[in-house]
Amino acid sequence: MSTERIFNFSAGPSVLPLPVLEQAAAEMTNYRGSGMSVMEMSHRSKVYLNIFEEAKADLKRIMGVPDTHEILFMHGGATLQFSAVPMNLIGKTGKADYAVTGNFSNLAMKEAKKYGEINTACNSEDRNHTYIPAQSGLKLTSDASYFHYCSNNTIYGTEWTYVPETGNVPLVCDMSSNILSKPVDVSKYGLIYAGVQKNMAPAGCAVVILDKSLAGKEHPLTPKLMSYQVNIDGDSMHNTPPCYTIYMLGLVLKWLDSQGGIEGMQKIKAAKAKLIYDVLDSSNMFVGCAEKEARSDMNVTFKTESEELDNKFVKAATAAGFDNLKGHRSVGGMRASIYNAMPTEGCEKLAEFMRKFEKEN
Amino acid sequence: MSTERIFNFSAGPSVLPLPVLEQAAAEMTNYRGSGMSVMEMSHRSKVYLNIFEEAKADLKRIMGVPDTHEILFMHGGATLQFSAVPMNLIGKTGKADYAVTGNFSNLAMKEAKKYGEINTACNSEDRNHTYIPAQSGLKLTSDASYFHYCSNNTIYGTEWTYVPETGNVPLVCDMSSNILSKPVDVSKYGLIYAGVQKNMAPAGCAVVILDKSLAGKEHPLTPKLMSYQVNIDGDSMHNTPPCYTIYMLGLVLKWLDSQGGIEGMQKIKAAKAKLIYDVLDSSNMFVGCAEKEARSDMNVTFKTESEELDNKFVKAATAAGFDNLKGHRSVGGMRASIYNAMPTEGCEKLAEFMRKFEKEN
Repeated sequence: MSTERIFNFSAGPSVLPLPVLEQAAAEMTNYRGSGMSVMEMSHRSKVYLNIFEEAKADLKRIMGVPDTHEILFMHGGATLQFSAVPMNLIGKTGKADYAVTGNFSNLAMKEAKKYGEINTACNSEDRNHTYIPAQSGLKLTSDASYFHYCSNNTIYGTEWTYVPETGNVPLVCDMSSNILSKPVDVSKYGLIYAGVQKNMAPAGCAVVILDKSLAGKEHPLTPKLMSYQVNIDGDSMHNTPPCYTIYMLGLVLKWLDSQGGIEGMQKIKAAKAKLIYDVLDSSNMFVGCAEKEARSDMNVTFKTESEELDNKFVKAATAAGFDNLKGHRSVGGMRASIYNAMPTEGCEKLAEFMRKFEKEN
Repeated sequence: MSTERIFNFSAGPSVLPLPVLEQAAAEMTNYRGSGMSVMEMSHRSKVYLNIFEEAKADLKRIMGVPDTHEILFMHGGATLQFSAVPMNLIGKTGKADYAVTGNFSNLAMKEAKKYGEINTACNSEDRNHTYIPAQSGLKLTSDASYFHYCSNNTIYGTEWTYVPETGNVPLVCDMSSNILSKPVDVSKYGLIYAGVQKNMAPAGCAVVILDKSLAGKEHPLTPKLMSYQVNIDGDSMHNTPPCYTIYMLGLVLKWLDSQGGIEGMQKIKAAKAKLIYDVLDSSNMFVGCAEKEARSDMNVTFKTESEELDNKFVKAATAAGFDNLKGHRSVGGMRASIYNAMPTEGCEKLAEFMRKFEKEN
């Protein structure tokens, strides 16, 4: 059995910091003298509540969450939020605006249509989601209950570089794939949500950060566990939360602090992405899939002139210890997901490998 | 830091088998030569799909799930099922029967009232849920869409010893706190569900086993991720499932096999419960809270003549390495949750400690 870890470019679930995994392993059978695993703790016990409160406080500090907003740890990942957002928020006017810039924002919009009148504020499908529409291209509804967008499109490798201006309409943002990669002015948002399995923790939880004044107006058929007000009132413990996932998030946040916090992360992720984009920009073989000004620092999508060569590259890369580089079927080619936990070394070595592959093929 | 594990009688999340935790720790940074943690694997990768399919196949075999039924791994624990069950199933006739024998069955009934006409088939509240009504005491509705009950009441320490006869009305059962503790004839049930955090795995998932013919008739406002049909069609991967929790469940199932499977578990759990019930039955200090014929083999509830003495016992027990023995506030006294993973030694030592405490107090 190999003891070597490989460079895992999976789009999610994805790489976690090695020191975090090592600490989790070391604490697995007996968490800091408690005599038990974090997995075995009552969620109401003092020892677990300390873990929970510390993770929440660290996230509040790191993201600069104002006191107007509450942090919730909810079940079901981002997909359940596709339903929870309209069920909780659309009742105000019965309408909402959705910006469609990729697969998940499209799924979110489709789901929202069950619950109200949805306006497509923009749709980048006309150029296969290779770009992010400009502010001037957004068709806004003045009495929308909220405006929903997805700040980073995992499949297409595009990222919003600006925060949409929507006047009095609350901003709702799915940040699953770029949360914690750069500073965000949380006060601008009515609601931020993120499935944790890309940049935060193992799969099985969604972090929701919402302006508390938006809660309490859910549709009467909203499942109780999906009511934001119920989750606020119960401090995310209306039922047993995904305790271990929250513990892992706490460890990741401590690691993030050790990397210089969110500002440190921003510098590191920009430098990592540049390593690969520089290869694309100077290559005669590899071409980026996204338009240059919309490129994501989290998911780098690229291809060669042919599917055959793409496949050859993926195969060779896998053999060389770079895993999960095959692009999503709706884009083809390759995708390198380089979330926070991907070491800079992984990007350096991938860039080097790409250059070598180009020379030899 | 202590390296000693304590005896953890928590009602959930609760003790897991030590060999399972040790294996999880050993495989944490590099799962069987894959070069990554299970936490880091794409849920669509071959290496993870093997883990997923093996856990599902083991559960199917161990519980004897017939081909008419599908096993789903769903987000949100049992509480989200309190909503999912009526949203998916009540549409047939708009009515359902609920047996109320404790806290969670009561919560399930309250939630179901949002979605249809609910008949209380029985309610053991008249004697503070210390008993399970007999079949003859069930008021059944002939055109109910389903009959819902909770087979083991964690807080009150009671357990159904029979399977209700409901004619053509499908049985729906919340087995969160006694699943895998004894053989169950799954074919008798329309739907079985269980939050995994008591007898199966760490918190963050519900196992749902349902007769496939019941799916596909959900309320139009059902969140997509809560549709049984969507989960069947996507093999529990409509979105990223709680991958690591399912991996842990797989390890627990292998451990269960090593204990003689479900028949082995049944013998062991009966013997463990007897160790403590024998103390109660021969004691002049400790009295069981549940009526004798309704006693649960999973949660043993008991008290002394006074709250002061209860507190003294809990304090002394905690100091002696028996944790989480304080009873739920709605019953008071003590509760020893002795799920599958509680070693027999834990029950032997607790019984011994109780006898000693009685002698000395």
